[in-house]
Amino acid sequence: MTVGVIGGGQLGRMLALAGIPLGLSFRFLDPSPDAPAAEVGELLVGDYDDPELLDRLADGAAAVTYEFENVPVAAARRVGAIPAPEALEASQDRLVEKQFFRRLGIPTPKLDEEVDEFPAILKTRRLGYDGKGQRLVETWAGPPDAAHVLEERVPFDRELSLLAVRGAGGDTRFYPLVENVHEGGILRTSRVPATDAPQADAEGYATRLLDELGYVGVLALELFDLGGRLLANEFAPRVHNTGHWTIEGAATSQFENHLRAVLGLPLGPTESRPAAMFNLIGSVPSAADVLAVPGAHLHLYGKEPRPGRKLGHMTLVEPTAASERALQTLISS
Amino acid sequence: MTVGVIGGGQLGRMLALAGIPLGLSFRFLDPSPDAPAAEVGELLVGDYDDPELLDRLADGAAAVTYEFENVPVAAARRVGAIPAPEALEASQDRLVEKQFFRRLGIPTPKLDEEVDEFPAILKTRRLGYDGKGQRLVETWAGPPDAAHVLEERVPFDRELSLLAVRGAGGDTRFYPLVENVHEGGILRTSRVPATDAPQADAEGYATRLLDELGYVGVLALELFDLGGRLLANEFAPRVHNTGHWTIEGAATSQFENHLRAVLGLPLGPTESRPAAMFNLIGSVPSAADVLAVPGAHLHLYGKEPRPGRKLGHMTLVEPTAASERALQTLISS
Repeated sequence: MTVGVIGGGQLGRMLALAGIPLGLSFRFLDPSPDAPAAEVGELLVGDYDDPELLDRLADGAAAVTYEFENVPVAAARRVGAIPAPEALEASQDRLVEKQFFRRLGIPTPKLDEEVDEFPAILKTRRLGYDGKGQRLVETWAGPPDAAHVLEERVPFDRELSLLAVRGAGGDTRFYPLVENVHEGGILRTSRVPATDAPQADAEGYATRLLDELGYVGVLALELFDLGGRLLANEFAPRVHNTGHWTIEGAATSQFENHLRAVLGLPLGPTESRPAAMFNLIGSVPSAADVLAVPGAHLHLYGKEPRPGRKLGHMTLVEPTAASERALQTLISS
Repeated sequence: MTVGVIGGGQLGRMLALAGIPLGLSFRFLDPSPDAPAAEVGELLVGDYDDPELLDRLADGAAAVTYEFENVPVAAARRVGAIPAPEALEASQDRLVEKQFFRRLGIPTPKLDEEVDEFPAILKTRRLGYDGKGQRLVETWAGPPDAAHVLEERVPFDRELSLLAVRGAGGDTRFYPLVENVHEGGILRTSRVPATDAPQADAEGYATRLLDELGYVGVLALELFDLGGRLLANEFAPRVHNTGHWTIEGAATSQFENHLRAVLGLPLGPTESRPAAMFNLIGSVPSAADVLAVPGAHLHLYGKEPRPGRKLGHMTLVEPTAASERALQTLISS
């Protein structure tokens, strides 16, 4: 049984590593011949909207999914991708996304003319990721052009994310809220469970999203926490960097549960143990140094090092102060 | 970094699934173009003793290992395989193996003229596996020919196995003793930890083996338990079916620890949770049925069904009576 995946990055690679034990084979479409997923499946090299390649991707596949949210919606439609392309559409435009949240009664930061404190953040509406397409502005000079949205800079206590999965029959499961630290717009660490976190509120918001979209698969909802009050920042209709800890830390990983969902299989339990995940960005420490830290799990994506590039991650299950410190030292050295 | 593996069966496949996250690539040598490991690496198709293919297998590899114990010793020597070929030699001949145990003071069943109760078991000395090459005999008609060995039929209470791993620097770690049930000579279930098991005795025996061989990698020691007294049955110088539960049940799987060892990396912790593993032999239940059992993990090897063939396995971590029964029902139906 073959699964087609639009995108062949590390998320595709980890989907395949979770799916091959289930007897699945994988086929990826990616513009780069060096895509990380090439190691674990067939790679079709070309543009995401190449109709011939899309048809080859879908040919005989039990399901086609995607592993990043800037997939052209028409491409997702052509192959009947799961999650349904409506989720892509809603998530690809920051203004549409926030309006969608609000329509569902999910609180968001202030937008455009609502912004009453500066500096605020001017964001491109489309194609932003990892902090790209954002800048601080000091004044409000009327509504931004149609390509941008102005957002208040939320004085959050912390950033949280909720990983949710919804099965083909509507069965929905949640992982514990994750506490995330970004630097320079890029995720650095995720810790789970977030202490004293408003899990029920977050699950309520995610449920509205999932049900409204008739969603099937894993979805990540990113939230700001202001003293227990949650504001929705964005959602990603796919497996997510803040869920990588589930590989070792949860009874069923986000990758396996995404595959179970898109294939119409029963979802797996999301019971989790405390975990901490550290991204490896721009460079990687030696495997010997990482693996000398008791309980450290190393995940490398097979990518050439480049500044600011996510090259891998490390996970600790039931981390101790000592093991966390040891990994942090490796990152900063 | 590439690892070469002699053999491309399910053990090779699971080695690669553990090693790809560490940034490793895999190359396999197997006579079958349908070898299960082909999904996760480059497959060289040909005989295990083909010198040209062996040289290609080893070309540029950081290490070469093997995934079954009937690799020709000369082939293992040619590629400088780890574990060292001496371990293969000792394990390939049932008589040499038992004599080796005894030289190290490790008790074994009675052999040849020592056998004083019948029926006893006449075994081929070489190339037996999964109960093949064994038959019960009712009398002792003098020493068997040079190709066979006579062994007492041990009235064991249970069969145990110890998975051990020894690193390049001599660091040695053990998983908890596993209790195994065979039927028709084929492993059916493994449960861990074996209750009230003589862990220290087993570790002592394994340590003698590992140190005598200067062993590097995972080794499985199969033992009979007679009221707390252990007799060594055989050892396998490789990852082992009775260690498959370590994928989900241990802090570091046997597959990852084998790779860490042969690459000279630090070993990972072997802390384990209770687990039960069920082999899928001859046929496989539907994935939907297996995954509907809470906490069940499914591993399929991508092999064509054939009577008596190991096609996959299922693992429960922290199994309950209900989840075990549910999986047993799927196997027997």
